Parts: sequence; structure tokens; C-alpha cells
Amino acid sequence: MTDVVIQQHYNDETAVCYGCGKHNADGLHFQTHWDGTEGVGRFTPQAHHTAFPGVVYGGILASLIDCNSIGTAIAAMYDAEGQPYGAAPEITCVTGQLNVTYLKPTPLGVELVIRARVKELTPRKAIISSSVYAGETECVRGEVVAVRVPARQLEALRPRQE
Amino acid sequence: MTDVVIQQHYNDETAVCYGCGKHNADGLHFQTHWDGTEGVGRFTPQAHHTAFPGVVYGGILASLIDCNSIGTAIAAMYDAEGQPYGAAPEITCVTGQLNVTYLKPTPLGVELVIRARVKELTPRKAIISSSVYAGETECVRGEVVAVRVPARQLEALRPRQE
Repeated sequence: MTDVVIQQHYNDETAVCYGCGKHNADGLHFQTHWDGTEGVGRFTPQAHHTAFPGVVYGGILASLIDCNSIGTAIAAMYDAEGQPYGAAPEITCVTGQLNVTYLKPTPLGVELVIRARVKELTPRKAIISSSVYAGETECVRGEVVAVRVPARQLEALRPRQE
Repeated sequence: MTDVVIQQHYNDETAVCYGCGKHNADGLHFQTHWDGTEGVGRFTPQAHHTAFPGVVYGGILASLIDCNSIGTAIAAMYDAEGQPYGAAPEITCVTGQLNVTYLKPTPLGVELVIRARVKELTPRKAIISSSVYAGETECVRGEVVAVRVPARQLEALRPRQE
């Protein structure tokens, strides 16, 4: 069975994401392990990642769902094309939509597990379902629309400064 | 016209949110100015809050929408009850749902403005529409379902550690 950390295959120039970029010194360094079917990440929020006392902040949970879903989408796209992860031309996705439902308060102080699966996949787009678990409890459920962007066009994505 | 920073009226014990809590030393300290109709916040992401070079990370944008929407919901609920902001019993909301659409890449290095309005309001729930602007450009659009929780029940919200 495959076990690849998909973020390790992101291009050096673009791997600066606050959530999961290996080259962001101040980032969260979230990683997605892809086994060919499921994208799984583990993350233990820090004490200051709180909403209310004892409860993880929703924006951090949304971030974990975002990065884990995008990683899963990219891995699944490489598989669908029969290409090795990270092979040129690099497959990159941006988040088109991020929908998050907070089912239960997520406890601070424990390792969370984020599990993602591909709901829909086309050459240009993926819809990824992700959930955050604390132990056996599903605390958060999310869906991400990942939109593929040619890596060489990322520079064009860069907004003009006003 | 009213201009209240609603987060300044949050209860000291609960004002620890990573996004907007005045008592979170490592937080973002986002503030919502409420004028009776609109909740407006300003935030300049730091260099490490990046997704790709020059573009703001989606998880940070989701966080700004989350905190600005919850602040707007709480302010509107005080108004609907004809109570001064922060008056006991404290009005507190948690995020039930957070839906974010990324319309355009959001530029790093400029001040963003987040504007929220009340779409629906009941004594127990609010639906808030929020957008993030860079200059005149609407980059991100979000909707939050804010669920009212009695402040004295926040302790009951605290998940049991496993």
C-alpha cells in the first residue's frame, strides 16, 4: 500500500503555505498521508489555538480541512494520470470553496485526525470530503472544491498590488 | 451612529479566541466595528499567512470571516433584545457552519476589509453574510450560521478529555 506525504512532493517555490508548506518557517506544517484511497493527517493544536476554554478554534479546524483536502485532491489527480507524485508538469490546486460544519466542540490538548476522501474527480476539479476526529468522535465535517491550476500559471494568479 | 468594537464587550473568561480574543496573547486580535447595520473589520495578514507567493492563505481568510460574522451576530442579538453590549446575561455564539467561496486570489501585503451583514436573525440563531475586500475587489465571500449558547453553559460545551 502506498504511503506518501503528498506535501513533500510540492514544488519548492510554491511550498510556502501557512497550513502545510514545508518552506513556511512560521507555518503549521500539516502533512497528508495518502494511501491511494484516503488522505489522513494528524495535528495537535497548540494551547493558543483556542475558541473558548478547552475548545479548538474553528478557523484552525477549517485550515486543517483545507490543506488535507487539497493534498488529497492533488494526490488523487497524480494517480488518475498515472504519474509519479511531484512529476512535471506539477499538479497544483487552489481552494474554490470550503464548507465546514461544526458538529461538536473539538477538544484542545489531544491529537486530532483528519480523514479525507475523493467525492468527485475530473481532470480540472475535485470535490473532497474531510472530517476531523478526536478519538472516535467526528467533531467537524467539511467539503472542499479543489480547482486545478497549472503550476506555471501561479505567477499569473498573483494579484496586482494596489 | 453607533461604533462599538463588539469583542471589547466579550466576557473576560471567554475572550480567549485565537482569532479575536483580547486575552489571547498569541492570537490575531481581529476586531469587529458594529454600526447597527454592518460589522466591519480590518486586518493586514503577515508575510507568513501565505498560500502561494503573494496570495493570502485560505484558512486565515476563513478565520477572518468566522470571527467577523460571530461578532456581528452577537452585536445584532444585543440590539434585538434592546440590551447594552456585554450586559448580563452575556450573549455568546458558536459557529455551527462556515461556508467560504474564494472568488479571486487575495493579495498579501495590503490591509483587507471584512464586511458582514445579518441575513437572518432569531433569538437563538443568526445567518451572517461576510465578504473580504482588497481595495474595491471582493476576493472572498462567506456565510456563517451563528448559534447562540448561554455563556454559563460554555463550561458544559467543554469536551471531556479522552
